[in-house]
Amino acid sequence: MNKVQIEEAFKKLQIDIISRLEAADGIGKFRFDEWQREEGGGGLSSIVENGKIIEKGGVNFSAVEGPLNPQAAKSLGVEPGVFFATGVSIVLHPNNPMVPIIHMNIRYFEMDGGEYWFGGGIDLTPHYIQEDQARTFHQALKNTCDKHNPDYYPEFKVWADDYFFIKHRNETRGIGGIFFDRLNQETRGLNKEELFNFVLDVGKTFAPVYTKFMSELHHLPFNETQRNWQLLRRGRYVEFNLVYDRGTRFGLETGGRTESILMSLPNQANWTYDFQTEAGSPEEKTLSLLKKGLQWAK
Amino acid sequence: MNKVQIEEAFKKLQIDIISRLEAADGIGKFRFDEWQREEGGGGLSSIVENGKIIEKGGVNFSAVEGPLNPQAAKSLGVEPGVFFATGVSIVLHPNNPMVPIIHMNIRYFEMDGGEYWFGGGIDLTPHYIQEDQARTFHQALKNTCDKHNPDYYPEFKVWADDYFFIKHRNETRGIGGIFFDRLNQETRGLNKEELFNFVLDVGKTFAPVYTKFMSELHHLPFNETQRNWQLLRRGRYVEFNLVYDRGTRFGLETGGRTESILMSLPNQANWTYDFQTEAGSPEEKTLSLLKKGLQWAK
Repeated sequence: MNKVQIEEAFKKLQIDIISRLEAADGIGKFRFDEWQREEGGGGLSSIVENGKIIEKGGVNFSAVEGPLNPQAAKSLGVEPGVFFATGVSIVLHPNNPMVPIIHMNIRYFEMDGGEYWFGGGIDLTPHYIQEDQARTFHQALKNTCDKHNPDYYPEFKVWADDYFFIKHRNETRGIGGIFFDRLNQETRGLNKEELFNFVLDVGKTFAPVYTKFMSELHHLPFNETQRNWQLLRRGRYVEFNLVYDRGTRFGLETGGRTESILMSLPNQANWTYDFQTEAGSPEEKTLSLLKKGLQWAK
Repeated sequence: MNKVQIEEAFKKLQIDIISRLEAADGIGKFRFDEWQREEGGGGLSSIVENGKIIEKGGVNFSAVEGPLNPQAAKSLGVEPGVFFATGVSIVLHPNNPMVPIIHMNIRYFEMDGGEYWFGGGIDLTPHYIQEDQARTFHQALKNTCDKHNPDYYPEFKVWADDYFFIKHRNETRGIGGIFFDRLNQETRGLNKEELFNFVLDVGKTFAPVYTKFMSELHHLPFNETQRNWQLLRRGRYVEFNLVYDRGTRFGLETGGRTESILMSLPNQANWTYDFQTEAGSPEEKTLSLLKKGLQWAK
């Protein structure tokens, strides 16, 4: 299991996911931007805008390498040297507020000295939380985790609750999912190939789960109140990504490709001063469920 | 010149600015939210939405005090103790893309040990940069600065260029203005009252300059291309405020009142992947002027 094999598998996953999303959308076509990084490596960004179901989104692949600058080495806690990093990142913002926003990322990092780790996660951000949907989503993640280690889902679910949290709003970004980082033989006891298989399985869990939501939900009617709520929730998504998301902030600070990093931002987001939900409304119910520690999977 | 006098003067300025803005808008009325801070002090937020000229904006006053937590003391470079901070903060997002976005802030900080400083700034973010307007704006700031010290404008103009800079876009937020911090007798040779007079003069420069722009520009026709460009520029404004603005980030991290801090975000902002301006267009011209180091004042 070397970096070339991992990179190739991630690249293949990107293309597979794109073809599944295009099939599910029916109209939206991804367009591709290949880019090179001056210091080494590059990526393939693929963006869809104005699909039938997806309003805006990206499925990005990158594989970059080069000398790690001292500040980055310090913040990652590794010895200076040459790094390699590859990953697939997805964010999709649908047109219909009844279809949830989704995010998925899997990544692999190594230093030329031999240190390495895998990281990643999936989380779902419904504009309107439906308990059935939350259970379906978390159960799918748990089933994937359980195939590899029964301890993963409970641990990575809590990690996602803590990570996808908008501190200044005291609310989670959505219903969470799983988040994990620094998986390697030392921290997990599994060898690199076993960990790779887990991470790739997480990546493969994304498309069937999300395309099912797309197909089942995109035809649901919605009104202006619901569209407005969707735009406000997207505002929260923007707040999370720009204020807290480590990948976004690290990427912007270290001179990553801005347009690829910020593909996660929606076509449109709104802010209304001190917006209050109505008592007993579905919006209020959603807010009440944007909490850590809810158990959705069996 | 004690903190109570400064606080009272800032409070009076807030009310004066609001009445001038309401007069210039003609329809928009500010609504007020008084809030208390658990550890001491509070503020008066005032927000306007759906005005004739102002789509969304805030003119906020606050005066907070209490024990400074060790982390904040360290990041401010002061000895632990009890702090007091008061200020007025303004951001206005107009309906018409021909009217620029504006920001103004003046602030005073002191520790119970006697250390103090003033800070502040004004900067203008036109969706379409007009050279005449940029000259008028900067000349007004220079005239205010020159009344107090001829060295202030050149220094504070450069400081604004550096501060209001969106690094990941390699562009300034707008045409800049002035920015200053840590003004006190030790750093500037002027006594507290003289510095207060300067800072208050900066605050008083805001309303006549901006209401003139409002009156002159709000009736200009605009088309869909121009509205769309405005929404994309607002997206950049959101990026600056959430990724870089020290006041915003410090406020969110230290448990400030989120709705008051984020009044700076527009009602609506858009992001389009890799948006390109047309050659020779006014949008391209604007981008070409979002640079540090342009001299607008005489």
